[in-house]
Amino acid sequence: MIDSKLFYHQAVALAAAGEDLYQRGWVPATSGNFSCRLDADSAIVTASGKHKGRLSPTDFIAVDLNAQPISSGKPSAETALHTQLYARFPEIGAVLHCHSPAATVLSMAMAGKSLLKLSDYELLKAFTGIDTHATSVTIPIFANTQEIDSLAAKADSYLAEHPNCPGYLIRGHGVYCWGSDLDTCLRKLEALDFLLQCELEQLRLSR
Amino acid sequence: MIDSKLFYHQAVALAAAGEDLYQRGWVPATSGNFSCRLDADSAIVTASGKHKGRLSPTDFIAVDLNAQPISSGKPSAETALHTQLYARFPEIGAVLHCHSPAATVLSMAMAGKSLLKLSDYELLKAFTGIDTHATSVTIPIFANTQEIDSLAAKADSYLAEHPNCPGYLIRGHGVYCWGSDLDTCLRKLEALDFLLQCELEQLRLSR
Amino acid sequence: MIDSKLFYHQAVALAAAGEDLYQRGWVPATSGNFSCRLDADSAIVTASGKHKGRLSPTDFIAVDLNAQPISSGKPSAETALHTQLYARFPEIGAVLHCHSPAATVLSMAMAGKSLLKLSDYELLKAFTGIDTHATSVTIPIFANTQEIDSLAAKADSYLAEHPNCPGYLIRGHGVYCWGSDLDTCLRKLEALDFLLQCELEQLRLSR
Amino acid sequence: MIDSKLFYHQAVALAAAGEDLYQRGWVPATSGNFSCRLDADSAIVTASGKHKGRLSPTDFIAVDLNAQPISSGKPSAETALHTQLYARFPEIGAVLHCHSPAATVLSMAMAGKSLLKLSDYELLKAFTGIDTHATSVTIPIFANTQEIDSLAAKADSYLAEHPNCPGYLIRGHGVYCWGSDLDTCLRKLEALDFLLQCELEQLRLSR
Repeated sequence: MIDSKLFYHQAVALAAAGEDLYQRGWVPATSGNFSCRLDADSAIVTASGKHKGRLSPTDFIAVDLNAQPISSGKPSAETALHTQLYARFPEIGAVLHCHSPAATVLSMAMAGKSLLKLSDYELLKAFTGIDTHATSVTIPIFANTQEIDSLAAKADSYLAEHPNCPGYLIRGHGVYCWGSDLDTCLRKLEALDFLLQCELEQLRLSR
Repeated sequence: MIDSKLFYHQAVALAAAGEDLYQRGWVPATSGNFSCRLDADSAIVTASGKHKGRLSPTDFIAVDLNAQPISSGKPSAETALHTQLYARFPEIGAVLHCHSPAATVLSMAMAGKSLLKLSDYELLKAFTGIDTHATSVTIPIFANTQEIDSLAAKADSYLAEHPNCPGYLIRGHGVYCWGSDLDTCLRKLEALDFLLQCELEQLRLSR
Repeated sequence: MIDSKLFYHQAVALAAAGEDLYQRGWVPATSGNFSCRLDADSAIVTASGKHKGRLSPTDFIAVDLNAQPISSGKPSAETALHTQLYARFPEIGAVLHCHSPAATVLSMAMAGKSLLKLSDYELLKAFTGIDTHATSVTIPIFANTQEIDSLAAKADSYLAEHPNCPGYLIRGHGVYCWGSDLDTCLRKLEALDFLLQCELEQLRLSR
Repeated sequence: MIDSKLFYHQAVALAAAGEDLYQRGWVPATSGNFSCRLDADSAIVTASGKHKGRLSPTDFIAVDLNAQPISSGKPSAETALHTQLYARFPEIGAVLHCHSPAATVLSMAMAGKSLLKLSDYELLKAFTGIDTHATSVTIPIFANTQEIDSLAAKADSYLAEHPNCPGYLIRGHGVYCWGSDLDTCLRKLEALDFLLQCELEQLRLSR
């Protein structure tokens, strides 16, 4: 039984987030997808192929944690990457996937590397459990694939080993980020993309 | 016979697109020009020399597919590049030409090269017929010239051979992009310029 | 006799331009200054030290073409650079001076060079008398100095020899640009700064 | 006795500044903190962990100049860096701390250097006591630490020797800037971050 009031409330909040993320240039040309948890066993996720800066409540689909739709419409092709996160982490309430320029270019410029280490930034403290800059946070970079289930399995196996990981990159594609609720997720995404921009700038300076 | 209601409707939609594209910095200083198809044999196109962020319906001229005006006013000097596309591709409904920084600089930085190959980007899926990142899309770079008819002929002969090409660059000048309707065209342009920015960034990192 | 209606009209138009230029980041921290011609012998210019994104009509001073105030208040310290232009070119109606990042950095990065040559850009056609990209436009770079009269004399002697010059740079300081009226001046400034950004990007790629 | 009307007035002004600074991308993900002096012995400072683009008057805490709260709530963990400045400089009325990309990256790229020298920029005149570009202004770069009292002591001892210093950097963290009132502080911060961006760009060009 879908809680339609909660569905609507989450959809409106995700649409507002989408408008903001679109203005930043992080979800160009219908790219990206967003979700919020409904309950222990379901979430809402953006429908396939929508403009992420102009979402309305009808642009969301309820899905179970096997990525199967439980309301009408066609959910994003990457739904399984969202539901993997909700299934793996009962405490999270929102997942955002963006294609920012920094995420796209940095992941491609680091060809052949599967881990990005972020060190010594004060802003690392935006991530759960980090209370000093004098540390490193590792962001995995997965190879891109159109086989979403296989990518979800890879992410799941990495995150089983590294439960504190704050997000991951898909090469030439973008970033996935999650949080206990949408505001927290937005804050972490903002921190992560800022750090990706800093790393890209440092890479520029080093070459 | 011009459908004046359709003319007005298209002009208003193009003016709104122009405001957005101007805010992005893609049509500085009256540069760029825009069009929408009216019917099988005609289109409306921006008048010559207008500020592209403040267009009104009177800033558009109806033209036939030989680039000849069929309403009063002076159409853009590059009208023939628009009508070439409408004549070549009966299925397209809109053409946008912008001068973004990325299109301008990348086409000049690739001096001596006539093709830009975009590979391995998830965002390639924004283009018609592409359903995987594991592919390449080729964007031709034509030399700039003030002989618009000759440029239109070159574009036409390239596109006859490569009907799936999503857009082209003119060196030191800008980008041409088209789509089945204005929203589709805007989406493709957004994807293409994003990819041009990524390529420019990668070029920076490689030098 | 100052035409107070014209004064007010010009002040309001310059304030609107200032808001736009401030949003672009071209007049940070009270930098920059703006003017419009009143008649053959006078102009209004921004008062010294004002925030250029929040100008009101009382933030302008009328000056004669010797840079002497003819209304109350203290005009910009760089007034003589504006009045030199009005005296030299009877046909111009507006002068804008900005400190954009591109103008600042490019003029410093070209240490030891006194001329910037802009070639092969379609956008060169935004400048008076240019109808092809296949040309070069030369922008002089003057050394910065706090001796404004001496700088005005240098600019005047350069412009006497090069009346078609569309603007000039002051090293580590910014750009001066002028036009027949404020809209024309804004259009030229926009084209010039776009080209400075392109040149800076090309310099980056070349190093 | 706290002047509650002044508290409210300062809080509203700082919230407006915060909205602007957030839009610029200088205080991502709840980073940064802001303060205004109340009187000779106290100031208001942002509460810990707030979104800096959506502050309300309840998001501020009054503190004495030993960084101890004198109203309810938990002040920013970096409060002692603010109160050090109010104690050291009786004439200042506002302090802004931001994490701009330029401040973060430049301070890290200058690893091993503890001073940034800004020279020959016209915009140096935005700083108190500077009336020519033909000078240098030195910005110290302190190592980052979570020991705020020790950092405050380091800043205090540097500023005792260099009372005209307009701001300082903390490596990988951000910038501190102050002024006689909030508008002055914003103007100086804007000038300083502009100059950091210029220096970063020059560093890019030099590598």
